[in-house]
Amino acid sequence: MQKSPLQIARSTYQPKLPKALQGKVALQEGALTQSVADQEEIKNLFPNTYGMPLIHMVEGEEKQMPAINVGVILSGGQAPGGHNVICGLFDGLKRLNPDSKLYGFLGGPSGLIDHQYMLLTKEIIDDYRNTGGFDIIGSGRTKLEETWQFDKGIEICKELGISAIVIIGGDDSNTNACVLAEYYLQKGCGIQVIGCPKTIDGDLKNEMIETSFGFDTACKVYSELIGNIQRDASSAKKYWHFIRLMGRSASHIALECALQSQPNMCIISEEVEANNMTLNDIVNQIVDMIVARAEAGLNYGTVLIPEGLIEFIPAMKRLIQELNDMLADNEEFLALDTDDEKRQYVKGMLSPESREVYRDLPKGIARQLTMDRDPHGNVQVSLIETEKLLIEMVAKRLATLKGEGKYKGKFSALNHFFGYEGRCAIPSNFDADYCYSIGMVATHLIAAGKTGYMALVQNLTAPAQEWKAGGVPITMMMNMERRHGKLKPVIQKALVDLNGAPFQYFAAHRQEWASSQSNYIYPGPIQYFGPASVCDQPTHTLKLEQSK
Amino acid sequence: MQKSPLQIARSTYQPKLPKALQGKVALQEGALTQSVADQEEIKNLFPNTYGMPLIHMVEGEEKQMPAINVGVILSGGQAPGGHNVICGLFDGLKRLNPDSKLYGFLGGPSGLIDHQYMLLTKEIIDDYRNTGGFDIIGSGRTKLEETWQFDKGIEICKELGISAIVIIGGDDSNTNACVLAEYYLQKGCGIQVIGCPKTIDGDLKNEMIETSFGFDTACKVYSELIGNIQRDASSAKKYWHFIRLMGRSASHIALECALQSQPNMCIISEEVEANNMTLNDIVNQIVDMIVARAEAGLNYGTVLIPEGLIEFIPAMKRLIQELNDMLADNEEFLALDTDDEKRQYVKGMLSPESREVYRDLPKGIARQLTMDRDPHGNVQVSLIETEKLLIEMVAKRLATLKGEGKYKGKFSALNHFFGYEGRCAIPSNFDADYCYSIGMVATHLIAAGKTGYMALVQNLTAPAQEWKAGGVPITMMMNMERRHGKLKPVIQKALVDLNGAPFQYFAAHRQEWASSQSNYIYPGPIQYFGPASVCDQPTHTLKLEQSK
Repeated sequence: MQKSPLQIARSTYQPKLPKALQGKVALQEGALTQSVADQEEIKNLFPNTYGMPLIHMVEGEEKQMPAINVGVILSGGQAPGGHNVICGLFDGLKRLNPDSKLYGFLGGPSGLIDHQYMLLTKEIIDDYRNTGGFDIIGSGRTKLEETWQFDKGIEICKELGISAIVIIGGDDSNTNACVLAEYYLQKGCGIQVIGCPKTIDGDLKNEMIETSFGFDTACKVYSELIGNIQRDASSAKKYWHFIRLMGRSASHIALECALQSQPNMCIISEEVEANNMTLNDIVNQIVDMIVARAEAGLNYGTVLIPEGLIEFIPAMKRLIQELNDMLADNEEFLALDTDDEKRQYVKGMLSPESREVYRDLPKGIARQLTMDRDPHGNVQVSLIETEKLLIEMVAKRLATLKGEGKYKGKFSALNHFFGYEGRCAIPSNFDADYCYSIGMVATHLIAAGKTGYMALVQNLTAPAQEWKAGGVPITMMMNMERRHGKLKPVIQKALVDLNGAPFQYFAAHRQEWASSQSNYIYPGPIQYFGPASVCDQPTHTLKLEQSK
Repeated sequence: MQKSPLQIARSTYQPKLPKALQGKVALQEGALTQSVADQEEIKNLFPNTYGMPLIHMVEGEEKQMPAINVGVILSGGQAPGGHNVICGLFDGLKRLNPDSKLYGFLGGPSGLIDHQYMLLTKEIIDDYRNTGGFDIIGSGRTKLEETWQFDKGIEICKELGISAIVIIGGDDSNTNACVLAEYYLQKGCGIQVIGCPKTIDGDLKNEMIETSFGFDTACKVYSELIGNIQRDASSAKKYWHFIRLMGRSASHIALECALQSQPNMCIISEEVEANNMTLNDIVNQIVDMIVARAEAGLNYGTVLIPEGLIEFIPAMKRLIQELNDMLADNEEFLALDTDDEKRQYVKGMLSPESREVYRDLPKGIARQLTMDRDPHGNVQVSLIETEKLLIEMVAKRLATLKGEGKYKGKFSALNHFFGYEGRCAIPSNFDADYCYSIGMVATHLIAAGKTGYMALVQNLTAPAQEWKAGGVPITMMMNMERRHGKLKPVIQKALVDLNGAPFQYFAAHRQEWASSQSNYIYPGPIQYFGPASVCDQPTHTLKLEQSK
């Protein structure tokens, strides 16, 4: 395996740890917990893992740990730092007892069910220190939800002598980790389950979890690219760049990138929904800015667009819902030959409001809404190129204004989508340190016999050695929500809080960023070796949230 | 103007200089030169700037320089390091005489013609040290070709007391710089002209110019992203990523990125042309690899595609030529209503060979070829999304093979285009040092009264202090070529040399990269502060070329 100079240099980086984790670690129990809502229901569903205390880790006398075997699972989309969680877990286990073993289940949760695994040795671990990606054991999207899956897990754990499973995943995977913990407790099979908070989307965040890992690195990669594009825009002075950013539903990534790079506009889905905005409202907002800049002689700029936007536009959401209901297994529709016939058919079936929305859409997008459907017949919203949709609608509106003499500028637009560029980047110092600490915390939770906990590292805007380590019962973060028609216990997903400091800062400055010639910030690429002011900064989101 | 931590830290970086430029500089004249071809014609066209000697710069006694005024122009597309050329020029001028002044012509060559300029002060210069972009004075694509333009230049130079102009540009801009130098000599107006070799495309390269500036940084940014995507591919194990890379005609950028990241496939346009390959040949080559990898259980991978590919496929080139000839100002065609009518019309007019090529194209691309035309009626080849074209054709072919039972894999493809992400990146140490040195060299060429020269820095794979500085007569790099139907003196554009070491290395390893599970290299982001093994490496292309 050939390596780049940076891979080689980075492999020897020793992640920084909180003081409490640097030597011998003792656990203290804090207050007993309640779920954030629906306490009775959650308690009934999790009789054994509900109400457990918070855990704090401090320097102190460590219990002797017998040799144990642990299994680890990567669940869901990649996030920078996943490998370091595993490295922290490995180093922690070996320090407590060199005879302990770490198994990796392959290809995500399915590895547990299908009994696909590998023993993680020091040689393997050393190859993946401080690297991006989830390729050490692979990841997958199989959901651990059914008891037959849990029982298959018991089989392989018994076979390998595994007494604890660490699940590295997002909100859903951690919810399922808790369901699994509860089930194994009920069964009395002696298998602990610990979760770790992963996702670049930044939506696994609450009173306890300050940020999910990967968000820092991914946002820094996207901001590097946005900054580079902005420098190009202000040099060439002739292009509008429409940049869509990954991040599923929530707009955390778009907001963080806006705070880092100060684009001319950033759309925040949560605000669109709160203000009940239509697609035309958004288009008009962009057009107003373009016209104003053109009047100042500035025929260029940048617009950031969160991936999930479409579903936050109430009228579009209704249209998509109607299409999903109408077209699922619709033989009549499938039998139609041409795009035009299909378009007419759809128009005839929609409600008057949705028909109007549908009629206003560019043809390409309208076609996409009716044609490209997932196996369940649903519109694949994440495949909709919102940035192109907006460019097309903005261009049309500007042409009209030009005809009316209300716009004299030139509009040339370029589109970009950033997602896969950042999910597997080499983790920033922040994510490398944070993830390694999370892995180490997981070890100590296991050593203390805990289950149904998520590994917790807090105080993240302070230098790493002042970080606080501990554990939070997963049930504490749960409430009941309707998912696919059923009420389920889930970890609350965090959307952008319009009253929160990050959005408020953005809202206070965006007018200035929209009109200016020189407000762009150029973050540049992630640095690993330079001054701490460059290399060891958390996200702006985190800094603003904690400066309150 | 707010700045990122990296912008702030980077602003104090002192670029490394060749030893010859660190103290007092003396100029030595080397051998007299000849143009690379068409000596008689070039000599006739450039009676005053032809045959001048090479210049070497060494430590030595420096002539006193009176205070002079110099103008600088950024020409054409952005390339990382342009600001540092200007900083080196500024610092060099001020060191030789603090009363010398540097003017920047605004918005490219048009600034000289339209008399748009600004005085560059130390405060302004300091704000742009080691930064990406061309925004300090802007750039533009106006060509300096006509004597009325040259005469307008004389007017403003007289007005501002400018006795030398530095043009920072690609092959065409440097050709024009020489035409300008020759004209000003003939006129005896006392204005020198010096060129500097800029372009991320890497095609301004020859026996004298080892590399153009910007190529290093741009390739490193693209390789960072390719590496990140490859880590994602080998983690998720379910996507084929088709990645198109900027770089106009030549495939230098794609080749360099391939050398840095070792993708499963990289198409080299020059090879496609040499082997007279068709679009279907390319598709089949990709399909063969995908089928082979699927048989090994690997349903993922990466394919790099140079921007200029389409025009290097001989059959496509002919088709595009026929379309250009047929559709320019074709009223009959323009009067047609529907896409279908236009398609039929075009089919009827094409030669039998081109008709076949046209018929095989996906509809979207065929439509693009006939619809989106530039103001001269030509197909806008750079707008063709070759990566999507290839995905569509590959998917179709794989579906056929699946039907025949010859392919059992899954093909999900994602497309990317990288260009604007790299043109204005913060220059690497290499480009920062190289560009600053070029600017300094330009100063000394001016001080020595030279004109019609390009600033030269060589021996670029050695540490910066061992670099060699000097000047090369631009006429030395010229030959006669047919452009837009006319024979013109131009600097030869360098395409990828299929017998050169970079391509040969690639060709010797690509089979291994195609089939392997673990040959990806992850270059990571450009580093500015770490060990020299990470921060001060030239491109693989340069290292391979110079290891001969």
